[in-house]
Amino acid sequence: MRNIKLTIAYDGTNFHGFQVQPNLRTVQGVLEEVIGRVAQHPVSIIGSGRTDAGVHARAQVVNFETDVRIPVEKWPIALNTRLPDDLVVTAAEEMPPDFHSRFSAKGKVYRYQIDLSASPNVFTRLYAYHYPYPLRIEPMIEAARHLAGRHDFTSFCAANTPVENKVRLLHHVELTREDHLLTITCRGEGFLYNMVRIIAGTLLDVGRDRISPDAIPTILSACDRTQAGVTAPAHGLTMWEVLYE
Amino acid sequence: MRNIKLTIAYDGTNFHGFQVQPNLRTVQGVLEEVIGRVAQHPVSIIGSGRTDAGVHARAQVVNFETDVRIPVEKWPIALNTRLPDDLVVTAAEEMPPDFHSRFSAKGKVYRYQIDLSASPNVFTRLYAYHYPYPLRIEPMIEAARHLAGRHDFTSFCAANTPVENKVRLLHHVELTREDHLLTITCRGEGFLYNMVRIIAGTLLDVGRDRISPDAIPTILSACDRTQAGVTAPAHGLTMWEVLYE
Repeated sequence: MRNIKLTIAYDGTNFHGFQVQPNLRTVQGVLEEVIGRVAQHPVSIIGSGRTDAGVHARAQVVNFETDVRIPVEKWPIALNTRLPDDLVVTAAEEMPPDFHSRFSAKGKVYRYQIDLSASPNVFTRLYAYHYPYPLRIEPMIEAARHLAGRHDFTSFCAANTPVENKVRLLHHVELTREDHLLTITCRGEGFLYNMVRIIAGTLLDVGRDRISPDAIPTILSACDRTQAGVTAPAHGLTMWEVLYE
Repeated sequence: MRNIKLTIAYDGTNFHGFQVQPNLRTVQGVLEEVIGRVAQHPVSIIGSGRTDAGVHARAQVVNFETDVRIPVEKWPIALNTRLPDDLVVTAAEEMPPDFHSRFSAKGKVYRYQIDLSASPNVFTRLYAYHYPYPLRIEPMIEAARHLAGRHDFTSFCAANTPVENKVRLLHHVELTREDHLLTITCRGEGFLYNMVRIIAGTLLDVGRDRISPDAIPTILSACDRTQAGVTAPAHGLTMWEVLYE
């Protein structure tokens, strides 16, 4: 069997998230169906992680096994001619048998985009959260610095998430601004459910002086979801990159 | 009567162009309906120019007359709360009675965007023409220089366009590239039907060595539509700005 790694991009607007669900259009469902048609056998793909309904991906990674002997460089075109235009394969690579898109990943990069224009920008409306309020960026940068590091992120994880260990290493949280587009980039070893969206919601509260940057260590140590800000909307979030050795 | 100027942005994907057509969703149709509801009287808007089905606008300008005494700065929010999310009012201004969004315009800026990625970029797919072929940019810049100036643009105008005088002043045609996105910016006093899309199609032929940059003066002087390149697809085109005194 050959182990094929695909890098894929999708516009999450019209998908009910990554994971297969009966009778719903999902990234995994559409991709397995199309790979199965090309391979002429049923295929199960493994994703580096799930994304929720409305969340996008610039470079999500999946892998699957097949004995079909299509040269690996032909997979992107073979699939893209059959895939809908909101789901694109950008690269394919044959990997050793032990490569697993989730367990082999060393980390991930997510971006949360915010449109600060007074009136929403029609061209980014599906990919950026429109937030037309005056924001102070300096305190947000200070709060972001407090978030970086190895912490118990229970306060930044959806309540009742059935994961025992909520300690994660967040390499950095960076803010960049270009015109009216504010981008929060989170790079970390691993992420909890809704973690980046709660970080974004909390940083927006900091930018509006509702939370002091100095309160971040207290919020972290409280290990209480109600202490952090709201979960920012899904459509501002993009899985940017999956990191491997 | 007050003469209100609106600056509007729209994603042209789901509009059958700017101009009202019976039973079709058009920018003018949607906007007149919503302004009429706010003003509580029927309204006719004048656009700076029409855009075809699929063409976008970053800053199209329209004006209309009303005797409703809503403060002009309230118009954008009053309209945006009622408009669909692919049509946004970004500014409103009260103008002298003789302001006419078309006749008062001194020129326009259009942008044509081309996605040169091997696999299409899902996030620009609605706003850039995917053209995954190797292009030589230098000859395209040279050809663009030949297009600038005051010329008879019959060769760069849809055949059978019922306009007598096809002489137009094109201030400049600029090419810029950022990552895989190539942008052709045309700034001119006035444009003929399909002119920017034919310029884009012709420059792409130049980039692929199908047309020599030196052939542009000959193509212009032929005054024959069949001499220029194809009309590039509508969705790559955005009306960028309308120029007034």
